[in-house]
Amino acid sequence: MLQDQDVLERRDERLEAMNFLNQISDDYPDAISFASGRPAESFFDLGRWIERVPAFAERHGSRAGLSVRHGFDSLAQYGRTNGLINDLISRQLMIDEGIRCAAEHIVVTAGCQEALDLLVPILCPSAGDVILACSPSYIGITGVAARHKTELLPFSRHGGRSIVASLTQTIEHARTHGKQARVLYLVPDFDNPTGAVLSLDERTSIIELCAEMGIIILEDNPYGMFCFEGTRLPTMFSLDRYGCVIYLGTYSKTICPALRVGFAALPPALCHADSNLSVLGKLSRAKSFVSVNTSQLAQAVVGALLLDAGCSLTRHVSPATGHYRGNRDCMLASLSSTFAYCGDQVSWNEPKGGFFLIVDLPFSFLRAQAMACARDHGVLVMPLSFFAFDDEHDNRIRLAFSNVTHDAIRDGVARLGRFVQTQLAAR
Amino acid sequence: MLQDQDVLERRDERLEAMNFLNQISDDYPDAISFASGRPAESFFDLGRWIERVPAFAERHGSRAGLSVRHGFDSLAQYGRTNGLINDLISRQLMIDEGIRCAAEHIVVTAGCQEALDLLVPILCPSAGDVILACSPSYIGITGVAARHKTELLPFSRHGGRSIVASLTQTIEHARTHGKQARVLYLVPDFDNPTGAVLSLDERTSIIELCAEMGIIILEDNPYGMFCFEGTRLPTMFSLDRYGCVIYLGTYSKTICPALRVGFAALPPALCHADSNLSVLGKLSRAKSFVSVNTSQLAQAVVGALLLDAGCSLTRHVSPATGHYRGNRDCMLASLSSTFAYCGDQVSWNEPKGGFFLIVDLPFSFLRAQAMACARDHGVLVMPLSFFAFDDEHDNRIRLAFSNVTHDAIRDGVARLGRFVQTQLAAR
Repeated sequence: MLQDQDVLERRDERLEAMNFLNQISDDYPDAISFASGRPAESFFDLGRWIERVPAFAERHGSRAGLSVRHGFDSLAQYGRTNGLINDLISRQLMIDEGIRCAAEHIVVTAGCQEALDLLVPILCPSAGDVILACSPSYIGITGVAARHKTELLPFSRHGGRSIVASLTQTIEHARTHGKQARVLYLVPDFDNPTGAVLSLDERTSIIELCAEMGIIILEDNPYGMFCFEGTRLPTMFSLDRYGCVIYLGTYSKTICPALRVGFAALPPALCHADSNLSVLGKLSRAKSFVSVNTSQLAQAVVGALLLDAGCSLTRHVSPATGHYRGNRDCMLASLSSTFAYCGDQVSWNEPKGGFFLIVDLPFSFLRAQAMACARDHGVLVMPLSFFAFDDEHDNRIRLAFSNVTHDAIRDGVARLGRFVQTQLAAR
Repeated sequence: MLQDQDVLERRDERLEAMNFLNQISDDYPDAISFASGRPAESFFDLGRWIERVPAFAERHGSRAGLSVRHGFDSLAQYGRTNGLINDLISRQLMIDEGIRCAAEHIVVTAGCQEALDLLVPILCPSAGDVILACSPSYIGITGVAARHKTELLPFSRHGGRSIVASLTQTIEHARTHGKQARVLYLVPDFDNPTGAVLSLDERTSIIELCAEMGIIILEDNPYGMFCFEGTRLPTMFSLDRYGCVIYLGTYSKTICPALRVGFAALPPALCHADSNLSVLGKLSRAKSFVSVNTSQLAQAVVGALLLDAGCSLTRHVSPATGHYRGNRDCMLASLSSTFAYCGDQVSWNEPKGGFFLIVDLPFSFLRAQAMACARDHGVLVMPLSFFAFDDEHDNRIRLAFSNVTHDAIRDGVARLGRFVQTQLAAR
C-alpha cells in the first residue's frame, strides 16, 4: 500500500502525462513514436468530407421547411443544446452497436471527453462521492476528477482476483471511510492503456453489482469498432436491464479527431420528464453553460458521412481496422524476434483490437527511462505508471501501434530492444 | 435585501432562463422574438467559408513542411491543446482591438463560454473564493459558477452610486463574511443584457481597484466590434498595466455561432514559464481534460477568414454593424411612437452598439408576464429578472434587435404596446 503522499505524486504524474508526451515529442522530433494513440491519418479525407456539408445543410433546411440558403444559415446559427444529428447517431448505435437509444436520450458533446467533464459533477454532487476507476486507467478520467475535486478510487482489473471481487472490496472500503461510490468508469473494449476486453460474464456481473449498489457505469467505447478477430461482445449499455449504464461514444477515431464530436447515450431511467431532476436534464443544462452546443459545422460533417453510409460506419472503418490489425501483427512479430533471447524476462499481451499493447519488462520503466529511451535510442513509449494508481505497473510500458508504418514498427521495436539490452547489461 | 431562499430561487430562475427561452420559442413558433440575442443570419456565408478550408490546410501543412494531402491530414488529427490559429488571433487583436498579446499567451476555446468554465475553478480554487458579477449579468457566468459551486456576489453597475464604490463595498462585505473576491466578471462594451458601456474613467479605476485587491478581471467582449457611433473605448486588457485582466473573445457574433471558436488572451504576468504555477499552464491542462483541443476544422474556417481579410474583421463586420444600427434605430422609433401616450411611464435606453436595449415598465414583468405576452400578443421578450440577483430589475425587460427585420420590429413593438396597454388598463 502506498502512502498518501505517493498517491498524490502519482496523481500529479498522471496529470502531467500529456505534457510529458508533448515535451518528449518536441524534444525528439525524429524519434519513432509508440507513445501517442492517434488514429492513422491515411484514412482521413477531411477535404472530401467537408464537400458533403452543403448536402447535409440542404437536408437540415428542408426538414425545417427552409430554402437551401436558409438551411445553411440555420446550420451556421446557434443550435439545440443536445445536438443536431441525434437521430442519425441513434440509428448508427442500433446498426453498429446493437444499442437501442432514442434520439432524445442522446446529448452530442465536444468529444466524449466533454461528456465526462459534464457528467462527473452531476453524478458526484456531494462531498464523499467517489469515482471508481481501474488501475491503470485512461488519463482523461483522472483530469476530470481532479478538476471537480472528486476522489478517484482505483480497483484492479488484472491480476489473480476477479474484477467483481476487486470492485466489491473497493466499494466496501469506500463505505467504511464514509465515502459513497457513485460512478464506475470503464473502457470494456480494447482498453486504453491495456488493450484488454471485459468478458461477457464480467460485463453482466459488474452491471448486477452496480445496479444493486446504485452506481452509474460510464462505458467509454472509443475503440470497439476496431475489432481484429472473433465476434464483438455486446456493449454494457445493451446488456443493462436496470438503467445504470451511460454509453460514451466518439467520432475521433472512426472519422477524425479534428471534429471534436462525441456523445453520451442515456438509459430511459435517467431521462425523466422533469428536467430539473433527471440526469439528462442536468446534463443538457450543464452543456448549455459550457459549450452552449457542439459545433454544428462539425456535427454536419459527421451527419453527412452517416447519411451517405446508411448510418453505419462498419464499412467506413474496415480499411482502418485492417491497417491496425496489420500493425499489431507486425509489432507482435517484431517483439518476438527482438526479445527472443530474453525468454520470460520480457513479455507482452496480444490485444484482439484497438490501438495499444502492453510490454512487461524486468526493470522499472518510469519517466527517467522514457526520457533516456527517447534521447539515446530514438523511440518514444509511455510508461504505464502514468496511467496507474499504485506501483504495481512500474515495470510496464504501453506501445501504440495505430499511427506508424511497418518499417517504423520494426525499427522502433529494435531500438527499444537496444535500450532494454543496455539496461539488462547494466544490472 | 432579499432572504437567502429568495436568492437561491432567483439563481434557479437565472439557470432556467435558457430552458424558458427554448420553451416559449417552441410553444409559440409564430411569435415575433426579441428574446434571443442571435447574430443576424443574413451575413452568414458558411458554404463559401468552408470552401476556403483547403487553402488554410495548405498553409498549415507548408509551415510544417508537409504536402497538401499531409497538411490536410494533420489538420484532421489531434492538435495543440492551446490552439492552431493563435498567431492570427494575436494579429487580429492588435489590429482590431489595439491589444498586444503574444500568440503563446492565447488559448483557443470551444466558444468563450468554455474559457469561463475552465478559468473559474482555476481562479477560485478554495472554499470562500467568490466571483463578483454585475446585477443584472449575462446568464452564462451564473451557470458556470453553479457548476463549480463557486459563489457569485452581485454589485450594481447602475443607479446612483459609482461602480467602484459599489464594487468596493461588495469586496468589503465579502471579506467581513470570511470570503475572498478572486474574480470580477464584466462585459464593458455593449453589455448583455443592458447594452451599457463602461466609461474610460470607470475602466481605469476598476483596474486600479482590482490590481490592489488581487482580483482578476474577466473582460468578456462579444459585442465590442458592433459599435454604431462615436469612437470605441480601449479594452480593459489594453489599459491594464498590472496584469490583472484576462480578455475573452469569440467569433460567434463576428463570424457565426456554429463554429464554437473563442479564446482567452492572458497578460504576461499570468504566463510564468513554470506551467504548474501559471494560470496559462493550468488553463492549458484543464483544456486538455475537457475538450482536448478546439475543433481544428472550426479553427481552420476562422483562420482562413482571418488570412483572407489580412487579420482584421473590421470590414467583414461593417455590413452587419450597419444592419444592427438600423435595427436599433427602427426599434427606438417604434418604441417612441408606440409609447408616446405613456409619458414617463415607459422608458428605455439608447445603446450605442451591440444587440440589446432595456425597457422600463410601470409594472412587474416576470416569467408569468412573458408567457402571457407570448400567448396573447405573439411577442417574446426576456424579463430582466432572469439576469438579476435581486428584485430591483423586476419592472424591466430586454429587447434583442439583432436578428429581426424592420417589419418584425415595428409589429413586435406594437404587440408589446398592446400587452402594456392591457396591463395598465387592468390596474
